[in-house]
Amino acid sequence: MERLYLYDTTLRDGQQTQGVQFSTAEKHAVAAMLDDLGVDYIEGGWPGANPTDSEFFEAVPKTRATMTAFGMTKRSGRSADNDDVLAAVMNAGTPAVCLVGKTHDFHVKTALGISLDENVENIKASIAHVAEQGREALFDAEHFFDGFKANPVYAIRSAKAAYDAGARWVVLCDTNGGALPHDVRRGVKALIEAGIPGTHVGIHTHNDTENAVANSLVAVAAGARQIQGTLNGLGERCGNANLTTLIPTLLLKEPYASQFETGVSHDALKGLRRVSRMLDEILNRVPHRQAAYVGASAFAHKAGLHASAIAKDPSTYEHIDPALVGNSRIVPMSNQAGQSNLRERLTQMGLDVAKGDPALQRILDRVKDREAAGYSYDTAQASFEVLAREELGLMPKFFEVKRYRVTVERRRNKRNKMVSLSEAVVVVKVDGVKTMSVSESLGPDGSDRGPVNALSRALVKDLGRYAECVADIHLTDFKVRITNGGTEAVTRVIVDSEDGQGRTWSTVGVSANIVDASFDALLDAIRWKLVRDGIKDGAAL
Amino acid sequence: MERLYLYDTTLRDGQQTQGVQFSTAEKHAVAAMLDDLGVDYIEGGWPGANPTDSEFFEAVPKTRATMTAFGMTKRSGRSADNDDVLAAVMNAGTPAVCLVGKTHDFHVKTALGISLDENVENIKASIAHVAEQGREALFDAEHFFDGFKANPVYAIRSAKAAYDAGARWVVLCDTNGGALPHDVRRGVKALIEAGIPGTHVGIHTHNDTENAVANSLVAVAAGARQIQGTLNGLGERCGNANLTTLIPTLLLKEPYASQFETGVSHDALKGLRRVSRMLDEILNRVPHRQAAYVGASAFAHKAGLHASAIAKDPSTYEHIDPALVGNSRIVPMSNQAGQSNLRERLTQMGLDVAKGDPALQRILDRVKDREAAGYSYDTAQASFEVLAREELGLMPKFFEVKRYRVTVERRRNKRNKMVSLSEAVVVVKVDGVKTMSVSESLGPDGSDRGPVNALSRALVKDLGRYAECVADIHLTDFKVRITNGGTEAVTRVIVDSEDGQGRTWSTVGVSANIVDASFDALLDAIRWKLVRDGIKDGAAL
Repeated sequence: MERLYLYDTTLRDGQQTQGVQFSTAEKHAVAAMLDDLGVDYIEGGWPGANPTDSEFFEAVPKTRATMTAFGMTKRSGRSADNDDVLAAVMNAGTPAVCLVGKTHDFHVKTALGISLDENVENIKASIAHVAEQGREALFDAEHFFDGFKANPVYAIRSAKAAYDAGARWVVLCDTNGGALPHDVRRGVKALIEAGIPGTHVGIHTHNDTENAVANSLVAVAAGARQIQGTLNGLGERCGNANLTTLIPTLLLKEPYASQFETGVSHDALKGLRRVSRMLDEILNRVPHRQAAYVGASAFAHKAGLHASAIAKDPSTYEHIDPALVGNSRIVPMSNQAGQSNLRERLTQMGLDVAKGDPALQRILDRVKDREAAGYSYDTAQASFEVLAREELGLMPKFFEVKRYRVTVERRRNKRNKMVSLSEAVVVVKVDGVKTMSVSESLGPDGSDRGPVNALSRALVKDLGRYAECVADIHLTDFKVRITNGGTEAVTRVIVDSEDGQGRTWSTVGVSANIVDASFDALLDAIRWKLVRDGIKDGAAL
Repeated sequence: MERLYLYDTTLRDGQQTQGVQFSTAEKHAVAAMLDDLGVDYIEGGWPGANPTDSEFFEAVPKTRATMTAFGMTKRSGRSADNDDVLAAVMNAGTPAVCLVGKTHDFHVKTALGISLDENVENIKASIAHVAEQGREALFDAEHFFDGFKANPVYAIRSAKAAYDAGARWVVLCDTNGGALPHDVRRGVKALIEAGIPGTHVGIHTHNDTENAVANSLVAVAAGARQIQGTLNGLGERCGNANLTTLIPTLLLKEPYASQFETGVSHDALKGLRRVSRMLDEILNRVPHRQAAYVGASAFAHKAGLHASAIAKDPSTYEHIDPALVGNSRIVPMSNQAGQSNLRERLTQMGLDVAKGDPALQRILDRVKDREAAGYSYDTAQASFEVLAREELGLMPKFFEVKRYRVTVERRRNKRNKMVSLSEAVVVVKVDGVKTMSVSESLGPDGSDRGPVNALSRALVKDLGRYAECVADIHLTDFKVRITNGGTEAVTRVIVDSEDGQGRTWSTVGVSANIVDASFDALLDAIRWKLVRDGIKDGAAL
């Protein structure tokens, strides 16, 4: 088995994502995650370029992975010793240093405004400086593939200069993301033919044509043995090569799985979905549902034909077992579902229904009608379960909502500031007893959280025998869209809930009235929790 | 130049995306967009599979592109004539019919449970049936690449059966998305060597390893001449090959640009970003910022080194000119380019502001603060104009809202049916006079239209001198998103308005309270109309 090295730049190039700015503490958290995953190099940032990166390197974490500081080759007109930008990078004291330099003649002239020879001298001197100090030197050959097209002799000469000066790795960068797989193959091959062994060649790609992953794979096929990338494909513009995708491909797919060994174990691979979600959590980004391998939809089988075959053998429509990357299968409900899809889904909910049970068709018909009215059960699995249980006679009534009223008011307060306040009254009949509850909408900080918040709080305030079970439900998300219900525009509300045990579930409500739609979704959320917790219906006792 | 055909399946495979469910009207809108773009085939859905698809084909739009109905090869034990599933597809009467069939021996045995020969006979009979009726027949060879690995002879035999029976296209499908570029190259080459000319071979890929685009390109390099994909990469699980990425690559990048001709003109390409956003609007999906070519971040230069070189020559860090796909460059708001972009945007609104006017920086700062609080001015151009006018001293006050109150109530009516009703009271001061208006929320059919409707009606009910100008404003759409405002989750509401002259404009409101956010968006909509209609502020008279 040959060794293939993974170099993570989430903390440096990943930070160039629009809207992403790590704090120092977050950089530490991400570095620990990367180290547990098993990447070989962690590029922590550019010491001296900004306060966060400098602070991170002041107390750099101890990692099994080689911690790397990023910088650029020395500027002209001064020695490597006397370049303060380079000095800041060296002073971070990391075992490895990665310096970016120009290999495209156009950039040497346009961006640097120096001679081609001078640039080669700067590369040599800078890399030699790093190597002389006993550090592992890496050279990021910026715009290598464009440079190779424009002036192949110069691109190779400048890359080779870094290697000859002692660079452990010469990393070919598709900096503007414009190279296609055939460009990458040609460039990597030419460099190896020019005398840099593939075991010293790396690849750094961007996703501007959606080819970052393919370009990394083609570089490996051409002989490169280091891949640079980021978790979740973060990075400048369209992002870098996505390690969250490349890692499972390299570990699970041929010819890579048989040919290469990486620092990531199959055990660590099982944590990949969690790593991806943790990074989203840290950055407060919405996880990408359609992400390869780790996305919530990656093993969601919506097509009826697919779902029925999956029920016979999951390998019919799954290219890998989702458990290998810590993901799981979803058979969503939709109006494309057939009975076999439905039975599979019910089984997952612990509801075993015999083939041919007439309730199956009733459930499908009701789902179809409801979807035509604007409902959607793809994500609102708990509302689907409530509906199915109703048709199967397995859904207790629990309580009855007699009426509700919500008031939203905006007016000036005593300090003449415009403030809003919502208030909700809910009247419920539990065990034959009518209770009336009221709640306002102020959050812990005293600010108004709106009418749905007030309604949700009033609803759970006095549910008698059910109060304890529903007390720990929190609303975690709330999604609204206008859609068509028959010929009218209606509002669809999806509510995500969570309880004290960390269980999460989603419910849906539809109405022309957004408050009504929200209320119905809230009701389903409560009823799902009661039935799942095995609470008995008071009326039935 | 060789002709390369683009086959769009947004309306069929794209609808398999979790959370996506087109209405019939939305299908018509997307088909019109695709036709304007210039794809060659539009796959409209599966007639008979669900009510929406059936309804779409009942009144199928006239398109320049070849409208295609999707279905599956006939089932065993009946003739092509007597298969009701196939009949529903044929009855749609489209000029082209695409039938999916098995080419992987494992699936024939496991999913269909029939003999290998029987499957080949079913393919032949089905394709011949389509061709005999004078329709263009396409065969989607399901799981072709897995099938080719497992049993190459059978995979090719079944694909060839379709071709020999009269299929215009044999489309090789990587149904589970597990094939890598080298697998696709091998499969396409083998099929062409087996005697199906490349001009009759198509490729259909999925993005489960992030290689859908690369797999499409490698298939073309191997000789295939039709690409199937979807707008924005919608599709089952991780999505299909993204035509929004493939189209600019084929039109702008070598060797494709010189070698191939497609139905998409360079002029239509300039509308690509807009097409991508319109689809997101229709589906109320958050546009993917990092999308190749069309994403908001695709030409955003965050790295300092990049931004300074871009100022010298944009081609230093841009692989294409963003204008070619209707996109634009983003550089950090703080620098000089931010101000010149802003001036250009203001000029477009008829507001000429001198270079260096201090109001420019105030506008940029306020947009930055507001975006941090959860606002978004990408689509809400009218709210942006109101903000800019305020800083420029060009926004009259018109009137003042003193307070409002909305009540939403659900209770039983006289016939013991649960009904909802909203009622809004708005107190406004116009020309020094306080007016108080009330409205309920019943639509023309007597049904409740919800609290925002009531609020909107109460607000415009008694605006004194402004009443006439605002009387013809209608709300045409209303979009709600939960987003981050600082550390809190807030609700962002975008309201689309239209007036009697057919003018449309969008405004935004943000608050933790959805009614408040809606109210602010409504206020901006009214103020924009007043200022645009040149109405004078009563207080200033």
